[in-house]
Amino acid sequence: MQWTKVLGLGLGAAALLGLGIILGHFAIPKKANSPAPQDLDLAILETVMGQLDAHRIRENLRELSREPHLASSPRDEDLVQLLLQRWKDPGSGLDSAEASTYEVLLSFPSQEQPNVVDVVGPTGDIIHSCHRTEENVTGEQGGPDVVQPYAAYAPSGTPQGLLVYANQGAEEDFKELQTQGIKLEGTIALTRYGGVGRGAKAVNAAKHGVAGVLVYTDPADINDGLSSPNETFPNSWYLPPSGVERGSYYEYFGDPLTPYLPAVPSSFRVDLANVSGFPPIPTQPIGFQDARDLLCNLNGTLAPATWQGALGCRYRLGPGFRPDGDFPADSQVSVSVYNRLELRNSSNVLGIIRGAVEPDRYVLYGNHRDSWVHGAVDPSSGTAVLLELSRVLGTLLKKGTWRPRRSIVFASWGAEEFGLIGSTEFTEEFFNKLQERTVAYINVDISVFANATLRVQGTPPVQSVVFSATKEIRSPGPGDLSIYDNWIRYFNRSSPVYGLVPSLGSLGAGSDYAPFIHFLGISSMDIAYTYDRSKTSARIYPTYHTAFDTFDYMDKFLDPGFSSHQAVARTAGSVILRLSDSFFLPLKVSDYSETLRSFLQAAEQDLGALLEQHSISLGPLVTAVEKFEAEASALGQRISTLQKGSPDPLQVRMLNDQLMLLERTFLNPRAFPEERYYSHVLWAPRTGSVATFPGLSNACSRARDTASGSEAWAEVQRQLSIVVTALEGAAATLRPVADL
Amino acid sequence: MQWTKVLGLGLGAAALLGLGIILGHFAIPKKANSPAPQDLDLAILETVMGQLDAHRIRENLRELSREPHLASSPRDEDLVQLLLQRWKDPGSGLDSAEASTYEVLLSFPSQEQPNVVDVVGPTGDIIHSCHRTEENVTGEQGGPDVVQPYAAYAPSGTPQGLLVYANQGAEEDFKELQTQGIKLEGTIALTRYGGVGRGAKAVNAAKHGVAGVLVYTDPADINDGLSSPNETFPNSWYLPPSGVERGSYYEYFGDPLTPYLPAVPSSFRVDLANVSGFPPIPTQPIGFQDARDLLCNLNGTLAPATWQGALGCRYRLGPGFRPDGDFPADSQVSVSVYNRLELRNSSNVLGIIRGAVEPDRYVLYGNHRDSWVHGAVDPSSGTAVLLELSRVLGTLLKKGTWRPRRSIVFASWGAEEFGLIGSTEFTEEFFNKLQERTVAYINVDISVFANATLRVQGTPPVQSVVFSATKEIRSPGPGDLSIYDNWIRYFNRSSPVYGLVPSLGSLGAGSDYAPFIHFLGISSMDIAYTYDRSKTSARIYPTYHTAFDTFDYMDKFLDPGFSSHQAVARTAGSVILRLSDSFFLPLKVSDYSETLRSFLQAAEQDLGALLEQHSISLGPLVTAVEKFEAEASALGQRISTLQKGSPDPLQVRMLNDQLMLLERTFLNPRAFPEERYYSHVLWAPRTGSVATFPGLSNACSRARDTASGSEAWAEVQRQLSIVVTALEGAAATLRPVADL
Repeated sequence: MQWTKVLGLGLGAAALLGLGIILGHFAIPKKANSPAPQDLDLAILETVMGQLDAHRIRENLRELSREPHLASSPRDEDLVQLLLQRWKDPGSGLDSAEASTYEVLLSFPSQEQPNVVDVVGPTGDIIHSCHRTEENVTGEQGGPDVVQPYAAYAPSGTPQGLLVYANQGAEEDFKELQTQGIKLEGTIALTRYGGVGRGAKAVNAAKHGVAGVLVYTDPADINDGLSSPNETFPNSWYLPPSGVERGSYYEYFGDPLTPYLPAVPSSFRVDLANVSGFPPIPTQPIGFQDARDLLCNLNGTLAPATWQGALGCRYRLGPGFRPDGDFPADSQVSVSVYNRLELRNSSNVLGIIRGAVEPDRYVLYGNHRDSWVHGAVDPSSGTAVLLELSRVLGTLLKKGTWRPRRSIVFASWGAEEFGLIGSTEFTEEFFNKLQERTVAYINVDISVFANATLRVQGTPPVQSVVFSATKEIRSPGPGDLSIYDNWIRYFNRSSPVYGLVPSLGSLGAGSDYAPFIHFLGISSMDIAYTYDRSKTSARIYPTYHTAFDTFDYMDKFLDPGFSSHQAVARTAGSVILRLSDSFFLPLKVSDYSETLRSFLQAAEQDLGALLEQHSISLGPLVTAVEKFEAEASALGQRISTLQKGSPDPLQVRMLNDQLMLLERTFLNPRAFPEERYYSHVLWAPRTGSVATFPGLSNACSRARDTASGSEAWAEVQRQLSIVVTALEGAAATLRPVADL
Repeated sequence: MQWTKVLGLGLGAAALLGLGIILGHFAIPKKANSPAPQDLDLAILETVMGQLDAHRIRENLRELSREPHLASSPRDEDLVQLLLQRWKDPGSGLDSAEASTYEVLLSFPSQEQPNVVDVVGPTGDIIHSCHRTEENVTGEQGGPDVVQPYAAYAPSGTPQGLLVYANQGAEEDFKELQTQGIKLEGTIALTRYGGVGRGAKAVNAAKHGVAGVLVYTDPADINDGLSSPNETFPNSWYLPPSGVERGSYYEYFGDPLTPYLPAVPSSFRVDLANVSGFPPIPTQPIGFQDARDLLCNLNGTLAPATWQGALGCRYRLGPGFRPDGDFPADSQVSVSVYNRLELRNSSNVLGIIRGAVEPDRYVLYGNHRDSWVHGAVDPSSGTAVLLELSRVLGTLLKKGTWRPRRSIVFASWGAEEFGLIGSTEFTEEFFNKLQERTVAYINVDISVFANATLRVQGTPPVQSVVFSATKEIRSPGPGDLSIYDNWIRYFNRSSPVYGLVPSLGSLGAGSDYAPFIHFLGISSMDIAYTYDRSKTSARIYPTYHTAFDTFDYMDKFLDPGFSSHQAVARTAGSVILRLSDSFFLPLKVSDYSETLRSFLQAAEQDLGALLEQHSISLGPLVTAVEKFEAEASALGQRISTLQKGSPDPLQVRMLNDQLMLLERTFLNPRAFPEERYYSHVLWAPRTGSVATFPGLSNACSRARDTASGSEAWAEVQRQLSIVVTALEGAAATLRPVADL
């Protein structure tokens, strides 16, 4: 062989070897470092969207709402078993599921001695009695499991006195009665739902010496004015005359005996005498037919126009009944409440899908399980969606076709109706673990209030993922709109960054998201389908918390065909998948800039002059907001640059930690020690009308009428420093991680 | 060419290509996924150990201690520049360095009106005056920059009264004087250092009506009894008769005007009238030669044996002077204090080495910079080590031979002597960021108290890394012992797990580690070389906080040759490298099990019976400790299994997060609201002798004498639940991350 050939072969060999090396290095991914799939898999997403089945949701709802399932009742326990069985199903279950039980303080009416409301004549004889139960119009309103309407946690007692009408029971309502010269001492106050919280009505009343409180739902507030039986359920979605809204009158949330501690049997419990937040006086809710008998017979001056309702008479203030009415003029009303506090076992059920790549990152999805009666709408419409979501994801999991990058945790909370108890105890028990690892909390309580449009409440970082999800899902109903395009027609705002977008509501304490956002600082959202406000002025769906909230009610009037349920399931499902499977977390922290900017502008416009008078400068707040804006957008830039390349999983993890943990930086457990659990300096309860930083706003309202140099003005400055420190700290966590 | 040849060539080519593919895939690590080095590099470690130079440390100390550098003084500012210049050096500097300045409340004696202590005769004339400055024995004790001895934060005032001797100024000391029938109202109390904290002496005295306090250092406590000039510095390491210990008498730490807020100019500041923690009455420290003149002339009954000292006379209690002494019997002592509170700028200096792989994980190393006078020992011996460590690591960095896996942050804190102010403000400003990302905090304040042995204080997870480091480093002095083997001869304990090991002390609030462990829950340690306790009973090195703490003092008496400095530098350097470069964090969380077990046993043995009497069970605590033990050892197992394989960097990151964040799970900001900054339920201050969980121990001491059912016993139960919840929560974070 000639040497040229040898050379040629040698070169060829080297080339081949080199080519091989290159192929081996670049073309074959290293197993350990590239878990498949690396990112959200659109095919899986499409499969999930396709498999979420309206009919199955309907069947879930039928089963869930078949019987009343009050917290800690036998049927509530049956549903715990139902959830466990579904989540442990070999074909469609999750990796693991378990129930965890807490011993919590609940409140129930007495079985032997029902609560009663009577009109008592001058001679002490009972002239008239209010209904003790709702009318059995569909055969579902009777039976031992339908709990008598009551005000949970209202103390027992049998006050009797002249009746007065106190509108919504707000502080200003009682003030108005006093200015009208009405002596409230020892009276019974009839109030209507709305305006202020349930417990607040009793608290305000007691401050003015009122002895007992009645609460009813006015047809003007719930039925668009309609009140006759043939205009109400089962003939329409409206509340029947005998319907009574039950509810918790406890002012805080969580188990009343174990604040900040999980209600496990061994935990320290506050002495009942030291529990705060219970209504101070006997209180009882009644239906509007009973309210009419009382209110339309009242004596005294005419109530203000804004106090009038739709009971078909002109409301007067009292005290006492008019001479020409159905009752003797000096008749009184007696309210007999026999509620009992009981320590009961209440369970959460938790189901887990283990993450393939980052099992220590949790996407939490939850709803409560307990209802007041059958609770078809509240909460079973949400639980029906929860079960369908877990079935579809569980099936893909068991088939081996999919496992999320991060862990997904499904939760069925107990005793929410009594004050978000199950979810709160859970956050108390696993505080650090959840705070360190939870990506976001998704709450779907009532999934369908009505079938007009999506409605989302949440913190700014979740806006973008909800938008991405809803743009890809067809809206139910006529036309070929996406859920997003339909949504924006009902709720929208003009964003300085994006132009016209659907508007997200902010999170109060209306459902189980409260401990997650306020106590733990976890980005949270609440998803539902709801009303066309141009079609009804109902405060909420009319049979809320009554024995008329049944499967047929939902099936006939709220969501025939369950397409709105399906729309919520698809939205929530898409959000879950995006949060659990996306390589980069779809939490857009820069969307907090708009909120901060608007809070700042409100502070400047509505408080700036006042603060200046007391030589308090908003300058440091301006600087802090600007810093946040700059750091947030710089981080956004770094992310999009990284996304263009092929980033190392550790690099992405570090960025994702910045995104996940941003919400935590707004927590300060020392900011509002008097506000139990509320530690988020942006979303704590705000008194006063200025839509700005709550600590600043509240401190200003308290200081407004005091002199400069007062403690109250010092507190304003302290609150200003607290929020500035939080924003500066938040900005610092968004900076490149190696810059201090 | 024949077809066989072609075939041969083809096969060969295929083989080569295949070989290449295999080589390429296995032999060449993927850049993005395997940053080199993946783990601690022993060669680098050896290089660092070899390059840490005793001579350079000595030269650092000479420069640092050349002039007095009281917090916020011009020389303190010069040293800020020195640090910046070193850390920005192109050849041996760090990636970045910057100074950050806070506006903090400090306390200084008046320049115009020095504090004075006089004996005033019956006619009001001054009979005798104490020295206002220390004797200028080495030429370094004079000059305008040597601050007059004073009690920082003691109020100004000029009380005058009969002198009493109150031993150490503990509560029981004043009680003893009262039982001796001595009226304390309006007296001046002479106390000696030791026993209780500085501020406590004034607080206790004021409770008993004392008008002013003097504090001195007794030769028995500091000089092993010696007191004559020829037996003391410069002739020995002992304190000269004129030496006076300065110090902060503030009861808390952090800037007094901005609790929980960074002391930036815009932060809210507490009204001076509302500041708590300052000594309530004028207080002044004096030297023992002045103390002798006062104490040896006292009248009254003989002081108890334990109150006697080494001033060469029998101490009496007073009140007033004896007739046959140097002063008229009815002479009084007047204490004139003219201290001033001043808002001053104080800077921290931060220097950063960016991590190559996990830049968002911080290994923090710090010491304060400010001294009372020259501060050669306190704190410059630590700063001299800090500078040598940063030089050696900086040089490797600039040469491109090394970059750590995680970020390393060097800190030079300001105003520590006034109450850990610089470090505390830093933790307040970056609370969330530091809590989320800091692996551990290493403090080296006084690096050499004496040259006998290593002494380490720290939380259990750092024990193993300190052991690993010290076993590999030769101990200074005779013999061929490792630092570990030498250490174990001086401080040791018998561990149920390891047998005889060196014992780590626990962390109080003596230096800048306090805010990191107590407020942020970051695993911390403090490293120094210290005494042979068989050779001296000195409370601390004798010239502590005096004008005699100079370079020559260190060079001649504490660490000639600076080999102990070098030993500390090597120990700290090895710990830094292990924490920053190890693939798996060398934090052994299972070492907390021993602590919990011992706390539990102490509770059972010393409180069990008492708790049982009040029907409080320790059962839940036992269960919680057992759970922690089980989960911690199971985690240990999983780690060693992983270490045998070739784990994915993400897997290791997840495990490391569990290790890093364990310490956080012991924080509860609502556990002891009255104890400012103290949130760690295991290391908060403990009153009472039982070495157990502080909340439980303190609550028990308060409840001990109250009836069952009292609020105090309820608090015992609450504290028990708080620690049980913390331990259960900690155990939960150690479980496999996908189990809830």
